[in-house]
Amino acid sequence: MKVSELGEFGLIDLLAGMAQSTRDSRLPSWQRLLIGIGDDAAAWQGDNSVELATVDCLVEGVHFPAGLAAWRELGWKSLAINLSDIAAMGGLPRYALVSLSLPGSTEVADVTALYTGLLELAGRYGVAIIGGNTSSAPLVVIDVTVIGRVPPGKPVLTRATARPGELVAVTGTLGGAAGGLEVLKRRLNLDPQAAALLREAFLRPQPRVAEGQLLAEEGIKTAIDISDGLLSDLGRVCAASGVGARVDAGRVPVAPAVSAAFGEDALALALSGGEDYELLFTGGPEVIDRIRVKSALPVTVVGEITEGKEVTVVESTGKPLKSLKKGWEHFITR
Amino acid sequence: MKVSELGEFGLIDLLAGMAQSTRDSRLPSWQRLLIGIGDDAAAWQGDNSVELATVDCLVEGVHFPAGLAAWRELGWKSLAINLSDIAAMGGLPRYALVSLSLPGSTEVADVTALYTGLLELAGRYGVAIIGGNTSSAPLVVIDVTVIGRVPPGKPVLTRATARPGELVAVTGTLGGAAGGLEVLKRRLNLDPQAAALLREAFLRPQPRVAEGQLLAEEGIKTAIDISDGLLSDLGRVCAASGVGARVDAGRVPVAPAVSAAFGEDALALALSGGEDYELLFTGGPEVIDRIRVKSALPVTVVGEITEGKEVTVVESTGKPLKSLKKGWEHFITR
Repeated sequence: MKVSELGEFGLIDLLAGMAQSTRDSRLPSWQRLLIGIGDDAAAWQGDNSVELATVDCLVEGVHFPAGLAAWRELGWKSLAINLSDIAAMGGLPRYALVSLSLPGSTEVADVTALYTGLLELAGRYGVAIIGGNTSSAPLVVIDVTVIGRVPPGKPVLTRATARPGELVAVTGTLGGAAGGLEVLKRRLNLDPQAAALLREAFLRPQPRVAEGQLLAEEGIKTAIDISDGLLSDLGRVCAASGVGARVDAGRVPVAPAVSAAFGEDALALALSGGEDYELLFTGGPEVIDRIRVKSALPVTVVGEITEGKEVTVVESTGKPLKSLKKGWEHFITR
Repeated sequence: MKVSELGEFGLIDLLAGMAQSTRDSRLPSWQRLLIGIGDDAAAWQGDNSVELATVDCLVEGVHFPAGLAAWRELGWKSLAINLSDIAAMGGLPRYALVSLSLPGSTEVADVTALYTGLLELAGRYGVAIIGGNTSSAPLVVIDVTVIGRVPPGKPVLTRATARPGELVAVTGTLGGAAGGLEVLKRRLNLDPQAAALLREAFLRPQPRVAEGQLLAEEGIKTAIDISDGLLSDLGRVCAASGVGARVDAGRVPVAPAVSAAFGEDALALALSGGEDYELLFTGGPEVIDRIRVKSALPVTVVGEITEGKEVTVVESTGKPLKSLKKGWEHFITR
């Protein structure tokens, strides 16, 4: 069987099962492990706090169009997608390691631009770049590992604790990143300001570190970052928690620039586009109200956790929405 | 300027300088940082011990011949090269994150073989695979991050503490990995047993974790793993320590299978071939004698740390050896 037939998520399940089968509870590494493969980041018990680590990569031609001369933004994004994972665990990032594979024909100025974007974001969150690796390769691959910790006494946010009856909420607005990718790929003829906004949503996502802290402080237990799309990532929460969910299409906070530029397609971009790196979380109405008041960002209830296993999207009439595209999955061609 | 004109080491220096320039001593991440970019692994002060992290990658067509159907060995090697970095710091590895980029046309059985090799080595050292990432890509890139720690009360081994008059020693034998790569690339017609030995030296290097512990216990301060070649890596110790070194060609422990297969070229493979992942360290004669007695591996003195900045290789007559190839450097075509 080819990887393209199994799909990304099938492959991850298979490899996670293999890794898990080597568990040896006599060893300190396994004894201290709290969360292995299958959440936004791995977590283990450090001496005084819970430690976190995550890795994510950007591949030329896969995560960004080949030949896209936006090195500074790529540097920013390569770190942002990892800080987002730490944020979704309720953690604070501390250290990053950067593994760069690129052709020898790359301009040095482009690589320093990449690092400039990366360091700009690192500086905002007090993250030190402490190591890395450079290798020649026929195309650009940027792999970033981030190590962080959960503030002592605070809970770790996971995917596995959603309960029926809880509300599902998201930070910010959705669809902007997918809209931005369309702008870059199709060179859409948009109002320049709207185009810049969408491009920025795709290339310079904002990791929701402060919001992750707020969620943990207010007693939220379940969170994930929206990397593959609202429906995909909510589906992941449901699978890990053994629950289902209902999303109300009319409540999804579609980014205004996406509505303006994509009209009827905007909802699909918001539901399935991915790469917005907002946080999705579940909780009771009072907690979510408190978070909404304290958050600098919009916080929107988009649906509810249900019994069962399905994630459904309903229109305002209560009818299920049809013909929904799934979110991004590597190796699968749709 | 192109990256190929600057070279890997120039690029690393440039990026390390950029990262270092963002140091902010008010932040806990920087306050706790002991060693950033520029050693085998990064090190920071944890709550009860020194923590270590390192990342290294294998790129198809660069680190291994494209189409080489040795997935299990690649899995082993992708972890081994990182465990070697932790070993060279005097650390014990604990956790690994694996970022896999590969074509959708890859056989699932090949990916599980890769993981089998990786988990085989992980099991030997009590390392738990706790996270990772999978992405589609036009070629195989395996990025592995390893997190470890220095046993409490033990020193961190670095590159920056070599002093003139100290002896330079290495564990094991050298040139086997470079010989193995030649066997794979050129399909040399060797005695099958010798070919298998060399192939294994290239594809299944043994990280010298126990030896790293022994060095630290016996009071060694300076070590590096030989990834790019004895001369390159010794040069790196010298640069970091502000010293020079003299290597006695006749004392270099060339792997017997390499001498048998490559004759006159064997010494060059041992000096410059790289990827043997043995440890190189410096220290006084008594300490090295104690280590030799206690080590399960051969430990060989190959030269001496000197004043100055140069690394020279001398023949038994005392004359400098000429026409030496440099070790591996990414982006540079020789």
